[in-house]
Amino acid sequence: MTTSMTAGDSLATSQRSLGDPEVRHPLWPPLVAGCPTTSTDTIAHPLEVDYAYDKASSALFTAAGSDTAPGAGAGHNRWAPLLPPLLAPGLGEGGTPLIGIGDGVFIKDESRNPTWSHKDRLNRVTTSAAVGVGASGIVVASSGNHGASAAAYAARAGLRCVVLASADVPPAVASFLNAYGALVLPVPAADRWPLMRLIVDRTGLHPVSNLAVTHTGHPFGAEGYKTVAYEIFADLGVPSAVFVPTGYGELLFGVWKGFTELHRLGLAESVPRIHACEPALGGPLHAALRQGVPATRVDVGDSDAYGIDCPVGSIRGVLAVRGSGGSSLLVSDEQMRAAQAELAGHGLWAELSAAAGLAGLRSAGQEVEREGPVVCISTSSGFKDRGVGASPELTTPVDPSWDEVSRRLRAAGIRD
Amino acid sequence: MTTSMTAGDSLATSQRSLGDPEVRHPLWPPLVAGCPTTSTDTIAHPLEVDYAYDKASSALFTAAGSDTAPGAGAGHNRWAPLLPPLLAPGLGEGGTPLIGIGDGVFIKDESRNPTWSHKDRLNRVTTSAAVGVGASGIVVASSGNHGASAAAYAARAGLRCVVLASADVPPAVASFLNAYGALVLPVPAADRWPLMRLIVDRTGLHPVSNLAVTHTGHPFGAEGYKTVAYEIFADLGVPSAVFVPTGYGELLFGVWKGFTELHRLGLAESVPRIHACEPALGGPLHAALRQGVPATRVDVGDSDAYGIDCPVGSIRGVLAVRGSGGSSLLVSDEQMRAAQAELAGHGLWAELSAAAGLAGLRSAGQEVEREGPVVCISTSSGFKDRGVGASPELTTPVDPSWDEVSRRLRAAGIRD
Repeated sequence: MTTSMTAGDSLATSQRSLGDPEVRHPLWPPLVAGCPTTSTDTIAHPLEVDYAYDKASSALFTAAGSDTAPGAGAGHNRWAPLLPPLLAPGLGEGGTPLIGIGDGVFIKDESRNPTWSHKDRLNRVTTSAAVGVGASGIVVASSGNHGASAAAYAARAGLRCVVLASADVPPAVASFLNAYGALVLPVPAADRWPLMRLIVDRTGLHPVSNLAVTHTGHPFGAEGYKTVAYEIFADLGVPSAVFVPTGYGELLFGVWKGFTELHRLGLAESVPRIHACEPALGGPLHAALRQGVPATRVDVGDSDAYGIDCPVGSIRGVLAVRGSGGSSLLVSDEQMRAAQAELAGHGLWAELSAAAGLAGLRSAGQEVEREGPVVCISTSSGFKDRGVGASPELTTPVDPSWDEVSRRLRAAGIRD
Repeated sequence: MTTSMTAGDSLATSQRSLGDPEVRHPLWPPLVAGCPTTSTDTIAHPLEVDYAYDKASSALFTAAGSDTAPGAGAGHNRWAPLLPPLLAPGLGEGGTPLIGIGDGVFIKDESRNPTWSHKDRLNRVTTSAAVGVGASGIVVASSGNHGASAAAYAARAGLRCVVLASADVPPAVASFLNAYGALVLPVPAADRWPLMRLIVDRTGLHPVSNLAVTHTGHPFGAEGYKTVAYEIFADLGVPSAVFVPTGYGELLFGVWKGFTELHRLGLAESVPRIHACEPALGGPLHAALRQGVPATRVDVGDSDAYGIDCPVGSIRGVLAVRGSGGSSLLVSDEQMRAAQAELAGHGLWAELSAAAGLAGLRSAGQEVEREGPVVCISTSSGFKDRGVGASPELTTPVDPSWDEVSRRLRAAGIRD
């Protein structure tokens, strides 16, 4: 039941450099600082995982396959053959719903994960890698969803967890980061990556976020995001396009890779266009595509979409956008706020960063071809936003007399 | 897809008084102030919904049935025949995972719902009732999960929503209540119910919380909670016992009723013992069972489990505990805190109220017979607790020198 069920063993065979797909490395150990063969002083190349696809059963993706699949608690176990080995226990990650909001637009509501963001899909896989290498724990640099999710999966696996956070984390998110028993150290942003390297070198904790000059992250991590594509395909078939809130581009790449696998396995006739939606106050992927380079660094302004305002990207984003015929869209904080309000009007309270996907769709207008249903990924819950809990006027008592209450009802357009 | 799919029409036939099961009323309109035939000045009797069970297909509950059932976004639609008519659109409510925490104990993680609590199961049904009677909106008295969930479902259905909240709502929850466009009026607790009656009488808004002298709530609401039992049965069969955080007892009753239906339909061989877990600083159900009355009122102390510290209960709780051979357990705030910490150690951040189920199991010890797996329902996310966001020390910067960081690592038992 739940965590013990599995749809089979992993078919993962090796790590492959995204800088040169001919360059392969053994599956273990995970190359947490990027490809040692192709990376340079200025560009680090992430790796992806390759599989024995010829041994994959298409029943994994069909209704007949799901007959024998476990229930809602199965999480990644359902897709175990096409993921790195799931050696750490799960929390029922994934299996999130698609919510239609009209006009062929569907929201993939990732706030329904164990720690209420898409990051759980990654952390199940990276925590498993830590178990695989025999580490006593993990270390992560994050002030938000990634850190809290890593702490939760570490707790679940009986591993220690160190979170290098920052001091400007929203207050409710600070409670969230500290909820799972991790050692949370708020340090200046510039100190986080040097400290992570020191901690990795001196304690043997396994790093589950980036160590490299451009972003590579954990080589197994983005594999966990493929399940978003698998689930969309199971619920809807192949949509026309997917709009993805984009920070480092790991989710973007994972969704694209998942659909390419479905195509490769002969299940999907096509691959949707994958549109990256970055904050206009940053946008390293947009800059890399314009400059024709695999990854670059940009200055980041003070966006409230703190979950995705990254100064540096990786070739993952370039591959996903180019490979799918998609595009790179920049969305302003105002456009994300409008999309956040639109989602709330459908009953979905999303973090500002999470609304970037719908903001991208709405801002693109006619630029983006629409040949069928489109999916916007909403990555996280509104509870994680800056400003949550910081509006004392929301708890200011109202005069309970009928005169005052009826005045307020009428002001809101509700008539007595 | 998603909201438009349905597994069939509702088989609901009538409302039946819980004060006297021989007393029936037509299904419409919902009797929102309790049974007019059997209620007295001191006891209000809730109603339940009856169904044409002989027309229900057992395929609804089998793997074969779920072959044709829609995906994760289906929510209550999957169980439409055994629910009141689902006239308002859904948000993929329910379908939450069972997470094993060892020794045959499973957590039903209700924080995975659209607004991150079990209340979404109720509000899909009560908002549907509002649509059914042609109301322009709903009104609810709640300072937490119920109010925010009602606001979300009202937004989804295009209905107006008034939330009568209180001024002592936790700051992050105030943001949550206001996220979905409802008119939120913080008023003194004593004014909430009189104001609700006035608003109902003068505006025609449909009430989705209690209007009566003892608790009745909405007659359709508890039906939505039956799906918790259906899902547990699908994932695990019939557990030995279910431990339920208990405020007014609607969830308690719904879970019990769901299992009795499975038994009545010949699918389940038995019904689990249903254990009510109330805060020791209140406990109207515990008091009613001791006094041998259907419902009573108690003084409520200042429990931090504000989601379930109710001064008044209903006969629903008595029926569920007596009918299942269960018990009524009182749990202290300290016991709930210990259970909350235990859940966090498994990667689950639960609201304090939500940990009452596990606290009940742990406090009961040998008193509660264990013949097989048990389920503790965890109703909601830790983000809703008092104190969330109120710990400035969590964001106090740490000296990033290696001396200080390594000192903290060693203090946490992580050696370099």
